[in-house]
Amino acid sequence: MDNFDNTIAVVGGTGPQGRGLALRFARAGHAVVIGSRSAERAGDTAAEIRHRVGASAEVRGLANPDAVAAAGIALLAVPWDGHRELVRDLAPHLAGKLVISCVNPLGFDRHGPYGLDVEEGSAAEQAQQLVPDAVVVGAFHHLSAVTLWEADGLLDHEDVLVCGDDRAAKERVAALAATITGRPGIDSGALRLARHLEPLTAVLIGVNRRYRTRSGLKLSGIPA
Amino acid sequence: MDNFDNTIAVVGGTGPQGRGLALRFARAGHAVVIGSRSAERAGDTAAEIRHRVGASAEVRGLANPDAVAAAGIALLAVPWDGHRELVRDLAPHLAGKLVISCVNPLGFDRHGPYGLDVEEGSAAEQAQQLVPDAVVVGAFHHLSAVTLWEADGLLDHEDVLVCGDDRAAKERVAALAATITGRPGIDSGALRLARHLEPLTAVLIGVNRRYRTRSGLKLSGIPA
Repeated sequence: MDNFDNTIAVVGGTGPQGRGLALRFARAGHAVVIGSRSAERAGDTAAEIRHRVGASAEVRGLANPDAVAAAGIALLAVPWDGHRELVRDLAPHLAGKLVISCVNPLGFDRHGPYGLDVEEGSAAEQAQQLVPDAVVVGAFHHLSAVTLWEADGLLDHEDVLVCGDDRAAKERVAALAATITGRPGIDSGALRLARHLEPLTAVLIGVNRRYRTRSGLKLSGIPA
Repeated sequence: MDNFDNTIAVVGGTGPQGRGLALRFARAGHAVVIGSRSAERAGDTAAEIRHRVGASAEVRGLANPDAVAAAGIALLAVPWDGHRELVRDLAPHLAGKLVISCVNPLGFDRHGPYGLDVEEGSAAEQAQQLVPDAVVVGAFHHLSAVTLWEADGLLDHEDVLVCGDDRAAKERVAALAATITGRPGIDSGALRLARHLEPLTAVLIGVNRRYRTRSGLKLSGIPA
């Protein structure tokens, strides 16, 4: 595959956030591999995205390990529950790759959503610890899954905050973000700051419920 | 004093965030009492704000305990270092009042700013635990002190996220926020979510350094 390095495996690509991001990447012309525990369901979602994007879409579906093995970039879009085991199982395939985490460790109770305490600080840092040979970047936490899947055009009312310890990797992810929002993702610091970005999703979900909306996060004052 | 209940004491009102918010509240016609450890320095800042706002400004300066005693609303705008002791000392004066916390527990090292772990979850929750008879609301964490102090007009490119457990108190603070941004603060959930709002300031400070800007946070999709 010519663009092996730029092929994006979406682990958890049949979930709402995963399929929404996969659709956006496919629309932007990226080769995408939907990953799922079930290769069959991955194939179904891939077919649905091809149907929506058109004949030019380079999207297929595979079981998670095969999806990661077929790509140079792996986007983790899986639930927090089971995250550690899943990343550990995929570690041999993730090694040496660019791993993007949009995982949000959230809890829900009668007072609403909230961020969970994570031993390693954040889901992204946990992934980095489990796969030290990968380059982990945190991004895409705050984009509404519904908006990604349903809205047309660029999400120019939203920003993607990108954190990581590798400048070149952050720049690649920032450029990927531009295919969704129309402008590069914002360098939001070191990977450890993922612990502040991930739980912010709890705040946004709560806002969405109270205001019956799909809120988006934007930073003003960033030079074009 | 007729409007005793609406008088705002700014504890730490000579610091950058405190004096910036005090200036904005005074401009909007609120009676403001600048609080500081030093009544003299509080008086200096009050005089500076009166000079900038004009003769109509109702601003004076007092030592922190006297400032809180003279107001129905107390805004905590103090450094995290020493927060527990300061709130404990002020507790008798804060009891029964609306207490707004914009305190950000942040650390700084060679990798940049980051949010500190707080035993109670957040500065706002710590204040609530220390003064159970007060109603604590978290807000105004993310507004740039420089912008508050230097910019003219409303900060309509920013939103104020408001969290708390008392609906009426949140509504009062949301209305106060409108005097700064031009639209009500956004109900961002229960007080416990202050633990996610406060450390976000570390992300914004890092962004400001990297992009040499003063970034502001805005939520899109909130109905007017």
